[in-house]
Amino acid sequence: MRPSGRKLDEMRAVVIEPHVMKHAEGSCLIKMGNTHVLCSASIEDKPPSFLKGTGLGWVTAEYGMLPRATNSRTRREAAAGKQSGRTQEIQRLIGRALRAGVDRSALGERQIVIDCDVIQADGGTRCASITGGWVALRLAVNGLLKAGTIVSDPMLDHVAAVSCGIYAGQAVLDLDYPEDSVAGTDGNFVLTGRGRMIELQMSAEGATFSRGEMGELLDLAEKGIAELVAAQKAALA
Amino acid sequence: MRPSGRKLDEMRAVVIEPHVMKHAEGSCLIKMGNTHVLCSASIEDKPPSFLKGTGLGWVTAEYGMLPRATNSRTRREAAAGKQSGRTQEIQRLIGRALRAGVDRSALGERQIVIDCDVIQADGGTRCASITGGWVALRLAVNGLLKAGTIVSDPMLDHVAAVSCGIYAGQAVLDLDYPEDSVAGTDGNFVLTGRGRMIELQMSAEGATFSRGEMGELLDLAEKGIAELVAAQKAALA
Amino acid sequence: MRPSGRKLDEMRAVVIEPHVMKHAEGSCLIKMGNTHVLCSASIEDKPPSFLKGTGLGWVTAEYGMLPRATNSRTRREAAAGKQSGRTQEIQRLIGRALRAGVDRSALGERQIVIDCDVIQADGGTRCASITGGWVALRLAVNGLLKAGTIVSDPMLDHVAAVSCGIYAGQAVLDLDYPEDSVAGTDGNFVLTGRGRMIELQMSAEGATFSRGEMGELLDLAEKGIAELVAAQKAALA
Amino acid sequence: MRPSGRKLDEMRAVVIEPHVMKHAEGSCLIKMGNTHVLCSASIEDKPPSFLKGTGLGWVTAEYGMLPRATNSRTRREAAAGKQSGRTQEIQRLIGRALRAGVDRSALGERQIVIDCDVIQADGGTRCASITGGWVALRLAVNGLLKAGTIVSDPMLDHVAAVSCGIYAGQAVLDLDYPEDSVAGTDGNFVLTGRGRMIELQMSAEGATFSRGEMGELLDLAEKGIAELVAAQKAALA
Amino acid sequence: MRPSGRKLDEMRAVVIEPHVMKHAEGSCLIKMGNTHVLCSASIEDKPPSFLKGTGLGWVTAEYGMLPRATNSRTRREAAAGKQSGRTQEIQRLIGRALRAGVDRSALGERQIVIDCDVIQADGGTRCASITGGWVALRLAVNGLLKAGTIVSDPMLDHVAAVSCGIYAGQAVLDLDYPEDSVAGTDGNFVLTGRGRMIELQMSAEGATFSRGEMGELLDLAEKGIAELVAAQKAALA
Amino acid sequence: MRPSGRKLDEMRAVVIEPHVMKHAEGSCLIKMGNTHVLCSASIEDKPPSFLKGTGLGWVTAEYGMLPRATNSRTRREAAAGKQSGRTQEIQRLIGRALRAGVDRSALGERQIVIDCDVIQADGGTRCASITGGWVALRLAVNGLLKAGTIVSDPMLDHVAAVSCGIYAGQAVLDLDYPEDSVAGTDGNFVLTGRGRMIELQMSAEGATFSRGEMGELLDLAEKGIAELVAAQKAALA
Repeated sequence: MRPSGRKLDEMRAVVIEPHVMKHAEGSCLIKMGNTHVLCSASIEDKPPSFLKGTGLGWVTAEYGMLPRATNSRTRREAAAGKQSGRTQEIQRLIGRALRAGVDRSALGERQIVIDCDVIQADGGTRCASITGGWVALRLAVNGLLKAGTIVSDPMLDHVAAVSCGIYAGQAVLDLDYPEDSVAGTDGNFVLTGRGRMIELQMSAEGATFSRGEMGELLDLAEKGIAELVAAQKAALA
Repeated sequence: MRPSGRKLDEMRAVVIEPHVMKHAEGSCLIKMGNTHVLCSASIEDKPPSFLKGTGLGWVTAEYGMLPRATNSRTRREAAAGKQSGRTQEIQRLIGRALRAGVDRSALGERQIVIDCDVIQADGGTRCASITGGWVALRLAVNGLLKAGTIVSDPMLDHVAAVSCGIYAGQAVLDLDYPEDSVAGTDGNFVLTGRGRMIELQMSAEGATFSRGEMGELLDLAEKGIAELVAAQKAALA
Repeated sequence: MRPSGRKLDEMRAVVIEPHVMKHAEGSCLIKMGNTHVLCSASIEDKPPSFLKGTGLGWVTAEYGMLPRATNSRTRREAAAGKQSGRTQEIQRLIGRALRAGVDRSALGERQIVIDCDVIQADGGTRCASITGGWVALRLAVNGLLKAGTIVSDPMLDHVAAVSCGIYAGQAVLDLDYPEDSVAGTDGNFVLTGRGRMIELQMSAEGATFSRGEMGELLDLAEKGIAELVAAQKAALA
Repeated sequence: MRPSGRKLDEMRAVVIEPHVMKHAEGSCLIKMGNTHVLCSASIEDKPPSFLKGTGLGWVTAEYGMLPRATNSRTRREAAAGKQSGRTQEIQRLIGRALRAGVDRSALGERQIVIDCDVIQADGGTRCASITGGWVALRLAVNGLLKAGTIVSDPMLDHVAAVSCGIYAGQAVLDLDYPEDSVAGTDGNFVLTGRGRMIELQMSAEGATFSRGEMGELLDLAEKGIAELVAAQKAALA
Repeated sequence: MRPSGRKLDEMRAVVIEPHVMKHAEGSCLIKMGNTHVLCSASIEDKPPSFLKGTGLGWVTAEYGMLPRATNSRTRREAAAGKQSGRTQEIQRLIGRALRAGVDRSALGERQIVIDCDVIQADGGTRCASITGGWVALRLAVNGLLKAGTIVSDPMLDHVAAVSCGIYAGQAVLDLDYPEDSVAGTDGNFVLTGRGRMIELQMSAEGATFSRGEMGELLDLAEKGIAELVAAQKAALA
Repeated sequence: MRPSGRKLDEMRAVVIEPHVMKHAEGSCLIKMGNTHVLCSASIEDKPPSFLKGTGLGWVTAEYGMLPRATNSRTRREAAAGKQSGRTQEIQRLIGRALRAGVDRSALGERQIVIDCDVIQADGGTRCASITGGWVALRLAVNGLLKAGTIVSDPMLDHVAAVSCGIYAGQAVLDLDYPEDSVAGTDGNFVLTGRGRMIELQMSAEGATFSRGEMGELLDLAEKGIAELVAAQKAALA
């Protein structure tokens, strides 16, 4: 029934390749099927100015898409002179999600910038960015620990994200673009490794939804997140 | 226990004054306690270009805040030269929420722009904008029906929104600013008059949350939305 | 003869409601007939950088208009990405006018920002902004005096403004939009409570004018300003 | 008493060199003492879109200043990414002033753009721009008449401008920079060749002013304008 | 003597992987040692407006760099709100270079946009962009020919580019970043497959140069280009 | 054969008038036939921030063009809100070229900004800007030496530039606009007074070129530069 032939609760193949960028303190390429996102973590010695003197660190994110990551070419945001509302919304979400998994006091007064650049898009880019961004962040923090720059690990738990939705009347896991573009209801779920919720965004894209449907999607999400956390562990092993 | 002395499931006083703007096709001033938002609906004869020839209409929204709506002055976005990521995220949400309550085919090839300008802020401005914006939209559509410009009513149901969160360890309804600024978990719930869900955004602002807590917040939201829908009806009576 | 039925030297009803914004150090809503402007004064502890170390304070102003303050919707300047030339010209005028009524040495090294936001427009918004802005400024300065932050009153005199013009061949006081849009000559007059002139801007909008006509308009302006100053006093009483 | 040694009612030396720009339909270099402005007129076959089908033409102006026209270098507006409020205010004034001297119906559906670029500044640049801009406009219109593109002359009268102010307690004509920077009251006067008024802007820059002082400045302005109109005639002869 | 241990006339390892982007009409990943650039070609049915009705096509290019392609993080241009002067200079060069290898009449009224995005930077990114961009362009044109959209091949010859410079007093081929950052003279050479010159940019970065040195660099460039053209052929085979 | 009737190796008449701007530390008007550029040098006491504490100075350049310097009016960059790619490319070239002629250590921690504003354009504006900009720079540095602010002369040699190209199949010196707009190959050559090369940019604008042609153009450039250096010397005498 699904265009890809997947089962309702079947994820796309997930591949996370760590250490793909020579210069970054942490990096990976995450592939969720045909969605490919390059994630890097850059450590800055100073926190943003509003945190100066608080002893707290910060994690933030930026998101971009190569112009031809999409089926028809999208205008380059640098040429357009601004980031779209969609881009800003996504990068704010990534930053919030990753910060929720970090003890900012243990991180200390520094900032880690996560860059998520979509090389190829086929639905679910913001979720892939969170899942891959966490691996880049974890690798960068490992470097700080190894160097002795920080002494206690600020990473509280894994953070991963997946989208689920109602496609052709049925709850399905990990929407790809052909599903996403027609789904009646669409949700993004950010969870921790222990299954606690960090962010949940559900939106009626044509049909309103019920509490029951919400529960079904959440069940699928929990299953998917467990697989993503396993993939994160494998990549770091 | 709540700074305002309200009960856990008690809304702030809701007042919706319709017809407050002389020039707009529909308008109201909505007050949720000390949060005051001026909402107007402007009808444009043409749809956005991507809908030309489809027979479908469009509803969109813009959001703004007077510089001194807040406790300390916020920089004017027009002077800064751009809308913040927060503003864009909010106005995209308002537009999506209101569109979900409209039969765009019955609306026909025209656009209705909902402007939500916060005159005074005390938490919950995006939810107030949706609830008040719906009243402005309803009034503008009433005018189209009365004039015979459209013949069947495109309004599918009421749309209203409320925020709930975990404050001091307890689920509370309709967060005001003192609660919102320290709440561990914060959610915005957009529902229809019949209690169907349109949009649900929950976010851990310092503490992750469980499915049980999610359910509690949703119970509160359903109670609050019923009261908001009653206030919308009273304003239109 | 006037569209509104007013006499040639008759002002619109003037209402000034003080203390309308909970957060601002000073505020009022000024209504000149159907022109409604929300004015707030925000005190900042530091002067602009070019005044650091001079012992002098600064008063500046920003002006905005809600998109649907006007008969047809005006594009939101924050969305357009810049303030129009008209907006900048108006806010520079408001700032200059109010500064002329202040002893900047007595004010000391601080800045007061006057925000004038037009809620509804029917001609004369810049004049209403000056007259209402002065009340907001006066209230904010009263707070500084009461708190003992400053000891001698920096307010030199009332400042108020009115527009006059040649409409249908006759000099009329306080143009509303139907008059303003066809007036051959149009002037804005900013005067002090004692009748001294601060700013005078007259412009031929289709017909040049003579010194005699200039004198007639100025006579009307002096009459109007006296009434506005009385309204300011009543609002502060 | 004046820094330049001029009498109270003495203008700076005025020189208007026509035809200084090879490509423009009309051009001149106007020198008011050390203030030098290059003015060009460019004819465009189409009017701005809001005039399409009305039979009316348009005259508009743009104003700029070379970075080192001033005593200390001013940041290039093209590099800053926007025109300052001051620039926009000035170019709106120039455009309004020149349009007031044109029968837009006789001009027909075309636009003439007047560019005024300050090569060297010593006070009074906006007035010099109007006086020189009129010469460029007159030359461009002469070309249209000569070519038979238009048949009746749309130029109604000369337009010229001068600044006057209260310097060291005395009314003086044609302020240069040392005077302008300390003048208590400062005014710009735009008049026609027959002495009718087009625009009058007076502003208290530190001291309010009386009707009597206003009259004195206007007397000076009338004298100055007569000399400027004579210089325009000489340049065109 | 070279930091990398290469001989004076030795290129870095060149790898060109074609067909790396699922959505693009043509694409490749080019690696010049540690410099990696993703190149895509997007065909648009319409030419830019200035070519409408001429029968001629257009090839243009855009260039970008991921924020962490560089040793320390570079600010994202989309977030900064504009492309730097360097970026614009580079993308203008790429477009000019590729257009010189195309018969725009045979291409017909369409546009091909080449996007060159630097994934990792180690010197020579503009040259790699030209060499790889040509492969993407060739593949996209092959598609047009295969589909019969165009009938005669518009590609006139191979186009490739390499940088050479004076490093530590000696002429060296294919500068990497450690060499580029200290080279006294630096040149970019764009040649055709037959060795004709398209673009030549040499610049003294600290030491002026002579005609003799220019000749030496050109000799090296000719050698390098021959190897690059061979790599292009291999990638297309 | 050339549109202007000049011989193949004949420059346009070169005139350099020094000291044309009252306020600048150094200035000149350079005329290459109908190409006229106003060049000024502004000394700033502080170097750009990246040089603070290094003991080195900086020379930078900005380039602009009056809207009607060209045959048809070009949009004002300040109004467009940004400098074009062409403008940025040119001003980067001018800055690089002039810096190559300066001992930045002898200049010390200060910055000299060269503004080159094209008053009238007829081809070769970037070359004229370099040749004239060097004169402005020389004059400004002379002032620093005379005042004793710096003690050893940081100017290493003359810097001048000329364009050459293949026009109608023949190598010609100092292209004017009618030649430049159709030339098959076009080059800009920046040389020192002693004939050393600083920058060389050759570009195929329709026809690729050979090493032999390159040599011919360079021969012409060397002849032209010698004449320009003589003109610089005459202007400074």
